[in-house]
Amino acid sequence: MLIATPQSMHFDAPLALTSRASIRAYDLSFETYGQLNADRSNAVLVCHALNASHHVAGVYEGRPKSEGWWHSMIGPGKPLDTNRFFVIGVNNLGSCFGSTGPMHLNPDSADGQVYGADFPVVTVEDWVNAQALLLDRLGIQTLAAVMGGSLGGMQALGWTLQYPKRVRHAVVIASAPNLTAENIAFNEVARRAIVTDPDFHGGNFYRHGVVPKRGLRIARMIGHITYLSDDVMNEKFGRQLRSAVSGANEGNYLYSTQDVEFQIESYLRYQGDKFADYFDANTYLLITRALDYFDPARESGGSLTKALAGATAKFLLVSFATDWRFAPARSREIVKALLDNQRDVSYAEIDAPHGHDAFLLDDARYHGVVRAYFDNVAQEVGV
Amino acid sequence: MLIATPQSMHFDAPLALTSRASIRAYDLSFETYGQLNADRSNAVLVCHALNASHHVAGVYEGRPKSEGWWHSMIGPGKPLDTNRFFVIGVNNLGSCFGSTGPMHLNPDSADGQVYGADFPVVTVEDWVNAQALLLDRLGIQTLAAVMGGSLGGMQALGWTLQYPKRVRHAVVIASAPNLTAENIAFNEVARRAIVTDPDFHGGNFYRHGVVPKRGLRIARMIGHITYLSDDVMNEKFGRQLRSAVSGANEGNYLYSTQDVEFQIESYLRYQGDKFADYFDANTYLLITRALDYFDPARESGGSLTKALAGATAKFLLVSFATDWRFAPARSREIVKALLDNQRDVSYAEIDAPHGHDAFLLDDARYHGVVRAYFDNVAQEVGV
Repeated sequence: MLIATPQSMHFDAPLALTSRASIRAYDLSFETYGQLNADRSNAVLVCHALNASHHVAGVYEGRPKSEGWWHSMIGPGKPLDTNRFFVIGVNNLGSCFGSTGPMHLNPDSADGQVYGADFPVVTVEDWVNAQALLLDRLGIQTLAAVMGGSLGGMQALGWTLQYPKRVRHAVVIASAPNLTAENIAFNEVARRAIVTDPDFHGGNFYRHGVVPKRGLRIARMIGHITYLSDDVMNEKFGRQLRSAVSGANEGNYLYSTQDVEFQIESYLRYQGDKFADYFDANTYLLITRALDYFDPARESGGSLTKALAGATAKFLLVSFATDWRFAPARSREIVKALLDNQRDVSYAEIDAPHGHDAFLLDDARYHGVVRAYFDNVAQEVGV
Repeated sequence: MLIATPQSMHFDAPLALTSRASIRAYDLSFETYGQLNADRSNAVLVCHALNASHHVAGVYEGRPKSEGWWHSMIGPGKPLDTNRFFVIGVNNLGSCFGSTGPMHLNPDSADGQVYGADFPVVTVEDWVNAQALLLDRLGIQTLAAVMGGSLGGMQALGWTLQYPKRVRHAVVIASAPNLTAENIAFNEVARRAIVTDPDFHGGNFYRHGVVPKRGLRIARMIGHITYLSDDVMNEKFGRQLRSAVSGANEGNYLYSTQDVEFQIESYLRYQGDKFADYFDANTYLLITRALDYFDPARESGGSLTKALAGATAKFLLVSFATDWRFAPARSREIVKALLDNQRDVSYAEIDAPHGHDAFLLDDARYHGVVRAYFDNVAQEVGV
């Protein structure tokens, strides 16, 4: 069993942000798995999506159920094999799992308050810059690969644009070159649910000793609907009644507007409750905004081909047929723009039923593609 | 210009409901357009969806902008031509536009309170029964047609099952034989947003002098996303910034998590605000639950073919290619079940870009199909 050990690195120098604000000093939580080889050529950075963290793989000592969020993908003998690669997971700035974020002390606060709503807006570009500074401190100049799914894939793509010489390969899974209007719309509804929760207090709920759990629950329920495909929802839940499972009421309708009637309702409420217990509301706003803002083609008059001209890495892109949040067509836009620039691109569209969630799941074809790709990377860097 | 005049009918006898509860006495608001012919054969009942009412067509005297919700479809010379047909719109029980609903006095309340959360759960079947009683009072035994879109289409389908001998034709548009798990999921998130709004007060907000507007706004924003197609959202809004429209900030990002940044956000907030100003929160719960519960195949072990065996009407079904809320595949399930029963069915799948909303819009191919169908109905009933 791979044992993970969380670490933290402190940075004294201010980090200049895309918004022109800056973070005066900060900490980054991270974990590493495997061994950095002698010529420091086998490092792979794994970037996380909305609600994940630096705890990418392995388990914590004595806690066998504490698997990292991508443990099916990363570990000894896994598609990204920690026996060959030195894998790094970093918690992003503004998140709520150890790196500096809204619940940490604001050094600019006269009366020792936490950042709360004053935490500056951070972008994918800012995260990539912070990750690069961490790699500097770890003595890693060049990554064998940078890898991520969803928002993590945007960071991987960002790496190839901001630090093209420091990345040999980019593995971009279930991602997109930017959000569609519908994607932004779902993020906005979730944010409004949080911001209009009376317990949000303009983002300064910490000092009131409350948490805007109502809003967080709604945000998570909306999120969960968009992570799953209609097909897998119908297969897992369909129109099954809770009473058909519990045996109560002989499988008849309860005829209630507020009680749980269908299993899908029970599932969503459970997911919402769980999320509201651990996730920070300001972090939710920040991370969904980073998603909204990511748009590398914006500076190139909307041309993704122009935007990706400077990306010299080799690429693997993977998308999932039933992912309607980041549909295959969005991955194909990236593939097309890279091909326009004569870049080396592999692309796999996996016919998995699980929607956007598929990127976190163990699918043989999907994992086969990633494993084969990393076998080539390993040969290239000599591990 | 067709002038509409709202009317109301009082019913003294209790209405027994599917849930085994009953409504002791009630009023139905309705409107009629055109003239009932001598043999009373030209009546068409139009059923409304979630947030609409009995005001289907025409305008109110002196209020030229008060068009009925389906005025593009219904009126003199329109596809459903009020020069030939006698058209009836009825506000459903539990709604908030005149018919008895949660904001009306509860006759069982000792201290003269309104129903609020105690308004009984009503189903599509209950609405159809109430509509049939209204037709009795209007002296209409047989409908030339019953017509509806979305939830209104479910009522039209319900009519052919509950009162097969009273319906010659059913026009079922952008509808489904039941909701999918995803449909129920969206309804449930919207309901949770309302129910967990502190101003909801368990549904008895009226006596507190407040309205759960936060929840209603979120519910409506979610609804709007599902009414539109991804394509039309990208076309209408895309990633356009509000500042690109207002001219402020030179089209740059504001870098804010709470202010409106994208035009789609502005649109959704506006729709949410507007809705929260006029729609009743308990009605929202009741009507989404009626959607969830509708499932005629349920009593037939899940076989829609068996369930529709008793439907003797002729059918027109219409669906829209980009409608992902009630996708064409769902209409095809109904078509297939009717064909299994050797019924007379016309079916048109319209390649409109507008998603579920298309059923309310003026599309030449769509209106052409409906017009042609009603031309045949007119010939059949001799008008």
